[in-house]
Amino acid sequence: MNDKVINFIIEHHMIKEGDRVLVALSGGPDSVCLLHILYSLRDELNISIGAAHINHLLRGEDSFEDEKYVKKVCNELNIPCYVRRVQIEAVAKEKGISSEMAGREARYEFFDEIVKNEGFTKVAIAHNANDQAETVLMRMMRGTGLDGLVGIRPVRDEIFIRPILCLTREEIENYCEYNKLEPRIDRTNLESIYSRNKVRLEMIPFIKRNFNRDIIESLNRLASLASIDSDYIDKSALDIYSDFCIEKSGMIVIKKDAFLVHESLLTRVIRKAIFYVAKATYNYEMKHIYDIIVLQRGSTGKSINIPNNVVVENSYGDIIITIKQNNNHDNKEYVLVKRELSVKNIETFRLEGLLYDVQIEVKQNSKKIDLNSSDLIKYFDYDKIKERIIIRSRKNGDKIKPLGMNGTKKIKDIFIDKKIPNNLRDHIPLVCFDSDIAWIVGVNISDIFKVTNNTKNILQISFKERK
Amino acid sequence: MNDKVINFIIEHHMIKEGDRVLVALSGGPDSVCLLHILYSLRDELNISIGAAHINHLLRGEDSFEDEKYVKKVCNELNIPCYVRRVQIEAVAKEKGISSEMAGREARYEFFDEIVKNEGFTKVAIAHNANDQAETVLMRMMRGTGLDGLVGIRPVRDEIFIRPILCLTREEIENYCEYNKLEPRIDRTNLESIYSRNKVRLEMIPFIKRNFNRDIIESLNRLASLASIDSDYIDKSALDIYSDFCIEKSGMIVIKKDAFLVHESLLTRVIRKAIFYVAKATYNYEMKHIYDIIVLQRGSTGKSINIPNNVVVENSYGDIIITIKQNNNHDNKEYVLVKRELSVKNIETFRLEGLLYDVQIEVKQNSKKIDLNSSDLIKYFDYDKIKERIIIRSRKNGDKIKPLGMNGTKKIKDIFIDKKIPNNLRDHIPLVCFDSDIAWIVGVNISDIFKVTNNTKNILQISFKERK
Repeated sequence: MNDKVINFIIEHHMIKEGDRVLVALSGGPDSVCLLHILYSLRDELNISIGAAHINHLLRGEDSFEDEKYVKKVCNELNIPCYVRRVQIEAVAKEKGISSEMAGREARYEFFDEIVKNEGFTKVAIAHNANDQAETVLMRMMRGTGLDGLVGIRPVRDEIFIRPILCLTREEIENYCEYNKLEPRIDRTNLESIYSRNKVRLEMIPFIKRNFNRDIIESLNRLASLASIDSDYIDKSALDIYSDFCIEKSGMIVIKKDAFLVHESLLTRVIRKAIFYVAKATYNYEMKHIYDIIVLQRGSTGKSINIPNNVVVENSYGDIIITIKQNNNHDNKEYVLVKRELSVKNIETFRLEGLLYDVQIEVKQNSKKIDLNSSDLIKYFDYDKIKERIIIRSRKNGDKIKPLGMNGTKKIKDIFIDKKIPNNLRDHIPLVCFDSDIAWIVGVNISDIFKVTNNTKNILQISFKERK
Repeated sequence: MNDKVINFIIEHHMIKEGDRVLVALSGGPDSVCLLHILYSLRDELNISIGAAHINHLLRGEDSFEDEKYVKKVCNELNIPCYVRRVQIEAVAKEKGISSEMAGREARYEFFDEIVKNEGFTKVAIAHNANDQAETVLMRMMRGTGLDGLVGIRPVRDEIFIRPILCLTREEIENYCEYNKLEPRIDRTNLESIYSRNKVRLEMIPFIKRNFNRDIIESLNRLASLASIDSDYIDKSALDIYSDFCIEKSGMIVIKKDAFLVHESLLTRVIRKAIFYVAKATYNYEMKHIYDIIVLQRGSTGKSINIPNNVVVENSYGDIIITIKQNNNHDNKEYVLVKRELSVKNIETFRLEGLLYDVQIEVKQNSKKIDLNSSDLIKYFDYDKIKERIIIRSRKNGDKIKPLGMNGTKKIKDIFIDKKIPNNLRDHIPLVCFDSDIAWIVGVNISDIFKVTNNTKNILQISFKERK
């Protein structure tokens, strides 16, 4: 058994020499077995061990018996034991979440604290091969793809490890019996175990009887193979994402060439892009992913709405994903009064609707200024401004006299010429001096306010996209 | 329903304009529904339709009633109907196979014949979404990886198509009822349906009751996602296989760099390499694949045996897979008597043990011959040969006087110097003239028989690897 666990630890790079491993110890057979195995391997692995127990105060006297048992075990092994008591039901009520969720949160909060305060490097959790098989079966029954079949991961975030995920419940019970460990009950009544019990007590015995005595091992093998395949596909998809997706200020562009890669990768790239914008992937189904693929094959300018207020637009074959803006078109204007700007002072503004920070600086003209250093930093003849500097988004009928041109041009036509996506047009700031548009930020400046040899004072305006 | 089927046909590129589609028609609801849907779409898809029915003669009068029904249906639709009667049980007995297997063989043989003789381009088979869900569940229960979860493929070999794999059994039954099709029984008692019935009548209802009413759809979605992911990984693995595997004469070399790629691909490359040598992959488990990976990380010269008489050897980090040779070391010798070779005649021999064909030709010396054109074509001074030309594999103590050297060298040392894998050494032919080794084929020739300016007649020997 120790060999099996050691091989599993090595295979998944769970532990390195010198690690300090905190064992999540409920007092049930799984966690007690885990503690004992790691304890017996502590010299071989060159690790030190501690234990953490959370008393959920849910089962009256029994909870305190669990706590006492856990302390006794740790005392016998002479390892530190960290215990916390939490009124789980009160917390759940207060937060309006299930006691299962509240228990989970309390546990991980407690682990995090101990890891930080006591210098632990790993947290060992006692899931076993039966838990894994049940998880895979439940995922499969509820509907999943490859990623869901991975089930419980042997290692998460490089900190949480599950060294006995390779042992069946039977092996663990035999181990406890053989070593006279006399663990406490298996689990608290925290977990929503209705479904899991249906699987454990009815479905798996049914499968064992009729199809496969080794169903636990078979499902664990499936999880392990799925994990390897899923890892490969995820890594390949990440390469594509890096190559073809441009993240900026809460929106993302998926370049059209991404849509030429294999569907297996493309669907994952799109899912990741949605996640970047929406900060979540629940609510999204494969249907939405395929809707986006169909949108991309259609014509430019078309857009669709998907859940969580997300808009997806086809812009000349590229796909742009943004959060829908409030459509009240009396957009905010940011107005600065000229006489309040002091020469040589730098002022910074945060423009909420426009996703930018703005810096304004007045200085004397000098040959040293590179007027074209950046699309987001521009220079204007300060003395041509009468009263006000206004920063706003576009309105119907907006016009500009583009740099170097005699006539004026509609902003809308400029957007079309430059192939700027529909969805973005409302997010591009316009800088106006009094009633004239001086700068379509990132696109074009006006001829009227350009810096010439006669310019005395310069107004420098810098826009910076917020990450 | 027709729309659903049409979309499914398009999605999987099942049918193109002008196709002639042969429907496998048992007379049950699935195949009758399939026939009617394809018939109603025949103009839209621009296809023509026929039907094939095999009468297994298994259920007495009922079998003939099925046949009659099928003929009637085809007659009403005015489409050609091909019928064959086969004594399935007799065939099964004769071949010593199950009647399920015999039925399958008989069906596909019949389809192949009609396709060839009557110019059909597709064979449509009536599997439905429930069949798919059951297959996925059964695979999962018996133990599988991603590839098994693909289940029943919508298209196989570009000929066999399953247009109603997207319809549930319920949808099909409703279709039949609505269109008053009155199909015959669902299936013959050919199929080994014990397991499938357990899944259909017990397990799926259990899952519907306790977990997911849409389990059929969920499992079909899983199969479809698995198919996409599996296709991507297979294609990537095939690229690696092409880059790093060298197939020759029933053996294969996996170059060591292949072992640097992702495990997801590597395991599939190894499986494919085994298949090339063993012509089958049953009997092989993931364990054997991982044994090979471990072998590759070990030291050169080590080898392992895996099932079906296959030997795997580490040769300087490359992996060589071969079929084990019979180890009786009195290997065959092929002896040619010199006086029986006639000048200007070409003679060809097939050397069974040595995996080569050999061509021997005697010609006059001429400046035009390029002595170093190929490692497998060499030229010798014909007149220095006394009596016999012998082709054989190595024996203990074999020596050669290598070209350009004065002394002799052990063949074994030459093999070691040239890093020729252990496994291959017995397969390299040696050409001897009388008692001297004249040529280690592909490696080195002897100084004794080299062609010089004084050579009058040349013996040209060409070896050709058998594919």
